[in-house]
Amino acid sequence: MSSTTLKAPIAPAERVAHFKQDVWSLFTRLTLEHKAVNLGQGFMNFPPPRLIKDAASAAIHTDSFNQYPPPRGRPRLLKALSDHYSPVFGRTLDPTTDIFIPSGANEGIYCIFAAYLNQGDEVILFEPYFDQYLSNVTMNGGVPVFLPLIPGSSQEDGVIPSSSWKVDMNELEKAITPKTKIILLNTPHNPVGKVFSEEEIRAIGDLAVKHNILILSDEVYDHLVFSPSKHLSIGALPEYRSRTLTVGSAGKVFGVTGWRLGWVMGDAPLLAPVLAAHTRVCFCATGPLQEAVAEAFEKSDSNGFFDQQTKEYESRLAALTKPLEEVGLPYTLPKGSYFLLVNTSSIRIPQGFSFPPEISARGRNFEMCYWLLAEIGVTAIPVSEFYSDTNQHLGEDYIRFAFCKTDDVLEEASKRLLRIKEFL
Amino acid sequence: MSSTTLKAPIAPAERVAHFKQDVWSLFTRLTLEHKAVNLGQGFMNFPPPRLIKDAASAAIHTDSFNQYPPPRGRPRLLKALSDHYSPVFGRTLDPTTDIFIPSGANEGIYCIFAAYLNQGDEVILFEPYFDQYLSNVTMNGGVPVFLPLIPGSSQEDGVIPSSSWKVDMNELEKAITPKTKIILLNTPHNPVGKVFSEEEIRAIGDLAVKHNILILSDEVYDHLVFSPSKHLSIGALPEYRSRTLTVGSAGKVFGVTGWRLGWVMGDAPLLAPVLAAHTRVCFCATGPLQEAVAEAFEKSDSNGFFDQQTKEYESRLAALTKPLEEVGLPYTLPKGSYFLLVNTSSIRIPQGFSFPPEISARGRNFEMCYWLLAEIGVTAIPVSEFYSDTNQHLGEDYIRFAFCKTDDVLEEASKRLLRIKEFL
Repeated sequence: MSSTTLKAPIAPAERVAHFKQDVWSLFTRLTLEHKAVNLGQGFMNFPPPRLIKDAASAAIHTDSFNQYPPPRGRPRLLKALSDHYSPVFGRTLDPTTDIFIPSGANEGIYCIFAAYLNQGDEVILFEPYFDQYLSNVTMNGGVPVFLPLIPGSSQEDGVIPSSSWKVDMNELEKAITPKTKIILLNTPHNPVGKVFSEEEIRAIGDLAVKHNILILSDEVYDHLVFSPSKHLSIGALPEYRSRTLTVGSAGKVFGVTGWRLGWVMGDAPLLAPVLAAHTRVCFCATGPLQEAVAEAFEKSDSNGFFDQQTKEYESRLAALTKPLEEVGLPYTLPKGSYFLLVNTSSIRIPQGFSFPPEISARGRNFEMCYWLLAEIGVTAIPVSEFYSDTNQHLGEDYIRFAFCKTDDVLEEASKRLLRIKEFL
Repeated sequence: MSSTTLKAPIAPAERVAHFKQDVWSLFTRLTLEHKAVNLGQGFMNFPPPRLIKDAASAAIHTDSFNQYPPPRGRPRLLKALSDHYSPVFGRTLDPTTDIFIPSGANEGIYCIFAAYLNQGDEVILFEPYFDQYLSNVTMNGGVPVFLPLIPGSSQEDGVIPSSSWKVDMNELEKAITPKTKIILLNTPHNPVGKVFSEEEIRAIGDLAVKHNILILSDEVYDHLVFSPSKHLSIGALPEYRSRTLTVGSAGKVFGVTGWRLGWVMGDAPLLAPVLAAHTRVCFCATGPLQEAVAEAFEKSDSNGFFDQQTKEYESRLAALTKPLEEVGLPYTLPKGSYFLLVNTSSIRIPQGFSFPPEISARGRNFEMCYWLLAEIGVTAIPVSEFYSDTNQHLGEDYIRFAFCKTDDVLEEASKRLLRIKEFL
């Protein structure tokens, strides 16, 4: 009897029983089945920098690096992060108290919720939000409170500036209750590509101070901001420093999403409970690859890698917006991240097009992405997955393309996307 | 103002606020400060097999392996585990449904609790237990219920067979309530070194069936069992298969504790909620190193590595028991794992010996280990940390040595341990 035909004798816990299949696993499988060009999940199909691979290889051949690193992280990486981020934050980050290395930014965020949420505590999430936030809140007994970013009108050419997606600060203050424990800020923003301005950051920060709320600032795309925009860390502003935890990602900075190394940074007393959670959840993060990330930071602060990488992303973005302009599909122009949000409301899927049940059960936006990969041959992610059930209608028209891809992949995608014209 | 002198404006959650410093970080620091020989934490100071290092290096230079692996794990590793463990379990483990790769066995265990414990559900832990179990239960709203393993009397030479540490099955049934959701079995057992017999496993399994309880079988030391003992997986017995989740560890099998790769195995319907939890907590585990572990399994099933490794551990064990016999300190003889449990009740610490407050606050057993590392120069772990507050007195006399160390380290430790004679 095959294991899949069996029924489990034990019921799962409420915190996981309601989970649908995650959108990433679903669209990865469909992409393979339909041989679509994958602009879905945000992984790079170009090589990581040579130096980080060589450093990883050397670290693996240093025997002791293969054993447990400290739960906080390997000292060399903590120092490299302190050297790199202290100027960003305008103060010296103490590598022994103000930083730790989770098993990826995702686990870092999970551990912040584990460390700070009591049953029923509320977390404010701006919609659309990276889908993992929601489960990370609810798994730790938290209650998500949703507030949509409202897009401005499009320009004549159908382009919406990402800066026009705004938090309504009055609505934000109304959403705050005595149970509000955390506001989650994500800048540069996935999937909008918005880089929050100092004015916006201060308005959010001031409300956090007024109501004594912790700020979780997910800044994993901090190194992917397009000229002349500038990334600002809320933790760099002295007024908000003591209540801010900032999350970063080696996967995003150096193009190694499969390494599962991130960092959480903040003042020692605020960070300590998060490290305590991490020490129990994963104990520590992969050791030898920490050495490689350290070396990459040490060298990249002087070798021009970050500027070069940003330029490459700007050119990838241009390669993807070109066919959309030719087709006439409106999109939001990102100032950071490697995502492009496209409005699909003008696309007409031919009547009678057939969808598998796992797709039609999840609404119109999933159907659009399925049609796109099956008929046009390009994978995107349905942005309705980045909204609460209540506000899902706000995301129904949007799909997200990832452009962290090589030129040939973007060219092939562009060629295929031009066929959308036939369906407008 | 330094970050460590600040006070956090936000209170941590109850689930982490009571955590003391983990025993591993504490004794690692003290070991360095006192230049003690470290037989505390169970990491290897000898090299991992050459082939696994070379495979890791090759994987890192295969660009796509550096991107997100599937949350379940890389297909090659899932297949290698299926090939290796299907004969162990006497059935074909389907690599697409019956196995997943957590970020270390620790995270796998955490995710089992996350997937199955509702608030107030009870988990039975046999004492002494690996300390991380306790926080993993409570962080997920579970209530630990403790049942001590009771040691038999020592033989004439002061040696206690690890098999003589027994579960009182009547007490076990009495500990079961309608809230009991999970029994945690750990075989080979850390820190006792006990390999549970088929009779014991069946007695525990029968109670689990009778009361419809899930069995979490932590078998991370399954490849470290000394001849002629044999490891038996409870999941290999058909009666218990459908309610058993088995956890393993690449760190233990191949001597790479810092890689953070493990596996959870079980029937698809029982495993699915655990993978759902893992997909939210960490999303996926380090990708390139998964390829290396796959290759190590592929080759080690035929190249004699596992037998050779066991022989080396038997010789390491003998190197450590020798000085204890000379000194006359009673110990429990392990049949598996790389731990040696030693009874210190006959040691007299000289009056007036001074302990730092962080040690004396944690009781007599911590003081013994501190004295041992400061005066004798060898680090062990206080076993009281592996007991509940209620039963801590049962562990007060025991310390745990790890013997996953090179001959020269064990020799130096042995030489130093002989000095204990002066303090009996």
